[in-house]
Amino acid sequence: MSHADTRRSWIASANGHPDFPLQNLPLGIFSPAGGTPRGGVAIGEQIFDLKLATAAGLFDGAAATAAEAASADSLNAFFALGAGPRRALREQLQTLLAEGSAAQARLQALGADLLPAQADCQMHLPARVGDYTDFYVGIHHANNVGRLFRPDNPLLPNYKHVPIGYHGRASTVVVSGSDVRRPNGQTLAPGAEAPSFGPSKRLDYELELGIWIGQGNAMGEAIGIGQAQEHVAGYGLLNDWSARDVQAWEYQPLGPFLAKNFATSVSPWVVTAEALAPFRKAQPARPEGDPQPLPYLLDAADQAAGAFDIQLEVLLQTPAMKAQGMAPLRLALSNTLNMYWTVAQMVAHHSVGGCKLQPGDLFGSGTLSGPSADAFGSLLESTFGGKQPLRLPSGEERTFLQDDDEVIFRAHCQRDGYPQIGFGECRGVILPAH
Amino acid sequence: MSHADTRRSWIASANGHPDFPLQNLPLGIFSPAGGTPRGGVAIGEQIFDLKLATAAGLFDGAAATAAEAASADSLNAFFALGAGPRRALREQLQTLLAEGSAAQARLQALGADLLPAQADCQMHLPARVGDYTDFYVGIHHANNVGRLFRPDNPLLPNYKHVPIGYHGRASTVVVSGSDVRRPNGQTLAPGAEAPSFGPSKRLDYELELGIWIGQGNAMGEAIGIGQAQEHVAGYGLLNDWSARDVQAWEYQPLGPFLAKNFATSVSPWVVTAEALAPFRKAQPARPEGDPQPLPYLLDAADQAAGAFDIQLEVLLQTPAMKAQGMAPLRLALSNTLNMYWTVAQMVAHHSVGGCKLQPGDLFGSGTLSGPSADAFGSLLESTFGGKQPLRLPSGEERTFLQDDDEVIFRAHCQRDGYPQIGFGECRGVILPAH
Repeated sequence: MSHADTRRSWIASANGHPDFPLQNLPLGIFSPAGGTPRGGVAIGEQIFDLKLATAAGLFDGAAATAAEAASADSLNAFFALGAGPRRALREQLQTLLAEGSAAQARLQALGADLLPAQADCQMHLPARVGDYTDFYVGIHHANNVGRLFRPDNPLLPNYKHVPIGYHGRASTVVVSGSDVRRPNGQTLAPGAEAPSFGPSKRLDYELELGIWIGQGNAMGEAIGIGQAQEHVAGYGLLNDWSARDVQAWEYQPLGPFLAKNFATSVSPWVVTAEALAPFRKAQPARPEGDPQPLPYLLDAADQAAGAFDIQLEVLLQTPAMKAQGMAPLRLALSNTLNMYWTVAQMVAHHSVGGCKLQPGDLFGSGTLSGPSADAFGSLLESTFGGKQPLRLPSGEERTFLQDDDEVIFRAHCQRDGYPQIGFGECRGVILPAH
Repeated sequence: MSHADTRRSWIASANGHPDFPLQNLPLGIFSPAGGTPRGGVAIGEQIFDLKLATAAGLFDGAAATAAEAASADSLNAFFALGAGPRRALREQLQTLLAEGSAAQARLQALGADLLPAQADCQMHLPARVGDYTDFYVGIHHANNVGRLFRPDNPLLPNYKHVPIGYHGRASTVVVSGSDVRRPNGQTLAPGAEAPSFGPSKRLDYELELGIWIGQGNAMGEAIGIGQAQEHVAGYGLLNDWSARDVQAWEYQPLGPFLAKNFATSVSPWVVTAEALAPFRKAQPARPEGDPQPLPYLLDAADQAAGAFDIQLEVLLQTPAMKAQGMAPLRLALSNTLNMYWTVAQMVAHHSVGGCKLQPGDLFGSGTLSGPSADAFGSLLESTFGGKQPLRLPSGEERTFLQDDDEVIFRAHCQRDGYPQIGFGECRGVILPAH
């Protein structure tokens, strides 16, 4: 992991690709034109079709087992195999696709269907989501939002002891590119005595890291912090769409419900732990005076290399900007180093009371805002509760999202000696309320 | 529905059975001795095997469609068919099983396998739970618990406007009879400055009505209050096991998480809306001064007959009681009339922002305590926050549950002119923490 890796691929579009060089190889579920959903691997502008590759007998051993599992219409069975077969598949894929590979001629002889263009394919959810859990580990977000909802008491006493999370809605997790209908709901207008019903007026995004669970645990059995990373299948981007006015009225005492359960968008590609290995970092030191995590959340290897250095980006495009030929505007640039708890700590905490995790379960990290306004991961924070509108290059203003606005998340990792890798995009356009 | 129904069955154990006379006919998933899981119908002490009945061609039309769907190893496909086929199946079942049925000889000729004894069968979860939602519509419970957690502010301002609910954990919903492992977790001991980790010391049950969703809705489309009942497949008992010490420390600001997600038990039999029809009641009048529900929650038919008169019972048996030959002790007798919101209001609210409900989704009502201590649906309430222990006939005391204690829920409906029907039991024994 500490060695440079500058290998190139014989697939030209992979070399210098901002997201998908040979060193990334994320998995997803796609349908080729006229074909059924199956697993594939992003490489440059193309997708390596694991179903065709399996049928052609391109893999052997554990890699063949992994490729066959990933040939289905969801990655659940692949996730269930765990890290060993996943690593074996990655190694054989890199051998097949590297510049100078002995297999190049054989693969090319299999025809263009083996490597369709992403532009010609439809992406699907990577897995059937059994349960979806949203965490709250972005400490700047917790501070910013806490200040708005509870000015006297922004960060509650449990925050620095407990990786706070809550259960979300699995049935409305959708893949990037799915439109998001503005929800109707109950809200209490400022100064009103009674609530009213109608379309949310404070529709927002939340910039999160998505975490896909691999091998699960039996009910009643905890996953120790030292084993937690082995239970993660990979990572993506996640937009925890939020209706702030609904949330403010409904969330006490049992947490967000309709404010969040109308939609959650995820990026289609699952970036593996192996691809992210060069971008691991030590967990940032806790500020002076912060408590030490309890032993079940503390592992030396996790503290030393359990964090990630992933740049996260939020962009907005309005219909007016599009009509004027303007590119999406970057609203924020943040980083996963803003997580107060590591992914391993989330897994260990989630299962410590015996809660059963299953392959295809999804975690959201919570909103990953940075410390300054140019790194805030939600409009609630960027507009200071809707009080300071953002000015757009089209001459428009935004406090919260308007109908037909499109929100785009991107993420990239950079390090000397390695090509940049990325997560692709997580996009969604707001449809008007019914 | 207003006519008496005193029909009897040629299956002797059905007549006078406290739970399963001819008028009930709940569905569940069972395995006969040496057989695979399949759908069946409880009748007296026996189970009518829908898989064998379907193979024997006992049904026709919509009833045959329903019976075939219910022959699978879960009721999800049956739930997805909606109310029409379910009603058709009920009618043909009652014709087949009624005293004097022309089919009696034919059914008996099919052999004992068609009607195995419940005692010889294993019950399973009725359906794969896609998403599980826990509501909070027991207003006495909300008041009692609110007083313990927030003495100044027991019932929050939203309670009488919003059917409060939150998402729970689907992966740990288990069928009655499954043991429940005491969870470990973080708690803040009284007076302590920092949390500690270990087995929950305040393990509790919550007495709830379970609601199984039938036909779902498309994401983004709400289910109107007038149609909501048609989306419910049936009802059961639900125990929302709760670790009160974990809950108190973790639940702010995003709601209960590890305090609840280690286990939720449900009774195996799904009691249909048709069986419960004679026990419908008008929704109890709201106290003077309470707000009128918003229009999306208000329907004349629902107000007139959307509530249920179901008696709910909590019993406890400890190892010492069992050793002394004592029967389980009744801790509480409550009723579903303690629900501040109807099931139709829950369904309409849950979907009003576009959240997708799917066949096999499960709702819990929230704890259905009555107004007095002999009707409290949790130990948290019965012992006034653990301050007033219960005295047991074995000479023991209980504030919260001890290892090896068994909690049993039962439910029955009674009305002149109808035989009593019941829900069967929802049981669970506490195993010691790891």
